[in-house]
Order: sequence, then structure tokens, then C-alpha cells
Amino acid sequence: MATAPVVESASGQRLTRKGQQTYRRIVSEAAALMYERGVASTRIEDVQTAAGVSASQIYYYFGEKDGLVRAVIDHQCESVLGVHTPLLANLDSVEALEAWRDVILSIHRDGRNQQGCPMGRLTSELSRSAPEARADLLAGFNRWEEALRDGLRAMRARGELPDRVDPESFALALLAAVQGGLVLTQARRDTVALEASLNTLIDCLRGHADH
Amino acid sequence: MATAPVVESASGQRLTRKGQQTYRRIVSEAAALMYERGVASTRIEDVQTAAGVSASQIYYYFGEKDGLVRAVIDHQCESVLGVHTPLLANLDSVEALEAWRDVILSIHRDGRNQQGCPMGRLTSELSRSAPEARADLLAGFNRWEEALRDGLRAMRARGELPDRVDPESFALALLAAVQGGLVLTQARRDTVALEASLNTLIDCLRGHADH
Repeated sequence: MATAPVVESASGQRLTRKGQQTYRRIVSEAAALMYERGVASTRIEDVQTAAGVSASQIYYYFGEKDGLVRAVIDHQCESVLGVHTPLLANLDSVEALEAWRDVILSIHRDGRNQQGCPMGRLTSELSRSAPEARADLLAGFNRWEEALRDGLRAMRARGELPDRVDPESFALALLAAVQGGLVLTQARRDTVALEASLNTLIDCLRGHADH
Repeated sequence: MATAPVVESASGQRLTRKGQQTYRRIVSEAAALMYERGVASTRIEDVQTAAGVSASQIYYYFGEKDGLVRAVIDHQCESVLGVHTPLLANLDSVEALEAWRDVILSIHRDGRNQQGCPMGRLTSELSRSAPEARADLLAGFNRWEEALRDGLRAMRARGELPDRVDPESFALALLAAVQGGLVLTQARRDTVALEASLNTLIDCLRGHADH
């Protein structure tokens, strides 16, 4: 997954500053359309119109639609993980997990963000048909899982987790709670299930910490 | 959501026994294709070929594609909830929840079923663009949640849950764990996250029950 700023066209040409701005505008508009409608229902023509560019510009920057989709995946992983960056770096207490929960809830209480997790949606749509897309998304989920696991390990090192709580499993459970809570948010059009599942896990941790 | 056997065509005509068989064959083939490829990428022509029927037969039974999609949603809700029916009726002990977890894991350890939960996938794809589809899917999730909640309430009635475990929240957490675990199953191509999240919640319950 690209972490450095993108500076190349599809054919490997270095982009000017203005070229990079155009590249990022196209990715951002494509990401918004694909989040709203799904990848299959977003046509290159729709992205052209939204970003105010020509088909040949999109081809120059991304090649075929697959190239644009992979750039959208990078953008969404950075955006999802970036939102939580200061939080993700120090998820090592119940209070920090509560703050992380509150950020996620506040984002998805906004009706425009009730289409689920951008990473989760792309996974549902692409994981079978596009192996490279799946690998990029998995790399994003792994970073997220790692941040949660590191925080739980730090809690254990400080004696705040009993032995029977496995930081590996609990990190996956927290990540699944976000993803599943957001699937249910799409069906329900509210964040009740998302909040309930994160609270249930955090309460379990608190329960454990009391021992 | 239809629970009785379907006996009508799109225009309300009663179907013969043979007509009902054809109806069900079309729905079953359409459900399989939509699970594999997504709804948007499944053309009526693909369903025709798979079910060995004509376009006019599909139109007779379902009207436009939307009608077929709603029949697929009913089919998938029945199929997902039906699989667990004997289990869903009595999810009132840690052992029963473990048995339910084992059924879900065994289904999704099969690579053909690693495209996530059929209900979750349809929710991701349709909840925004198709309000009636969303309502049908939500009704399915509500039935699932209810079964989990009833089991937890029975545990509480028998004094097996401490007061601070809220059956409502915990039922949503279990449902979200399945949905989120299955989003991660799609990215990972294994059931490690699904198993970890269900085990984490069941362990929390056991932890509570020990008090």
C-alpha cells in the first residue's frame, strides 16, 4: 500500500505539483462516488464529471478502472486509519479505547457516513474478484489490528489485563465490532448496534480489569 | 418478509406446483450468482442461463430485476436464519452459544462461503439505493437479534447473568461479531477473526457468570 505521496502517472512519469493536485482530486471524487454507489455502479464517466477532467486524463493517471480502484483503496485506508492516527498510536487504556469509540461513533452518526466503513464496503465488493485489491485492504486491516493489539499488550505489561485476556483475539474482536457494527448501521440507519458492541467489549475489559 | 411459501407470479397469479419449482430454482440460482458477484454485476441474462429459463419467464415470476432481488433477500434471510433454526430457538446457555458459534464457523471455513454473510453483503450493496430491500434485510437482522436476546434473557432469569450485562446490548454485540468477523473473513480468507470475536464475547459472558 502506498504510504508516500503519489508522484507518478500510470506509466511511471513524475507528476508536477499541479498534476498531483489533479490526481488527488480524481481519487477523492472517485472514492466518494464508490462509497455512495459501490465500485461496480460507478462509471469512469461519473468520475470525469465529478472531478471535471477528461477520460484521457484519468487514463494518464490511473490506466484502466482497476488502477483507479486501487488508488481509491489506498486513499480510503489512509483516510480511515488517518482519522484515528493520534488515537491509534496510544490505545493502551480503557479511557483511550473509549475516546476511539467516541470518534468512530461521531463519524457514523452523520447520515452521510451511514454506508458503513469505506474499507469494509470495498472488501465486500472486491475481495473475491480482485486479489490485489483484497491484499491492499488486508494490509490496511492489519495495521488497524496491530494498533489495537499494541495498546492491549501495553495494558497487559502494566498489569491491567488478566492473563486470560488474549490481546491478539481481543484486538480482532474490537476490529470486528467496528466492522459488524457498521454493517448493522447500514441496515438500521442508526449507530445503536455499533455503540452496543463497542461498549460490550470495553465493559468486558473493565470487568476483567476489576479482578 | 415472506415466510409462507410463495404461490404467486409478479402480477398476482397463483402458481402451479411446477411453476413454484421454477420460481424457486430461479431464486436459488440468482441468490448464488449475487452472492458470488454482487447484485450490480449479476445480469438477468446470467440468471436465465444458470436457471435454464427465458427472460419472459423471469419477468412473469418477478417483474423487473428489483422484484427478483427482493425474492433473493427473502431466500437468503430464510437460508441464514433457517440454518440456525434449532439453535436460534434456544440460545440460552454458554454451551448453546458455543454450538451456534461452531455452526457458523463450520459454514464459513468452506472457501465457497468466504464471501461473508449473504445478508451482510446484500446490506452493503443495497441499503442506500433500495429502501424496501433495506427494510426486508433489517427485518431479518431483527429476528436474529431477538433470538439472541431471548436466550440471554432466559440466562438472566436463571441467574446466570449479572445485572450489569444488558441482554439487548449483548445480543447486538454477538450479531455484530458475526457480521464483522465475516467482513474480515473476506479480507483474510480465513475464519481466525470470526472465531476470535465470538470467543472473546463468549469468554466475557463466562467471566461474568463466574462472579
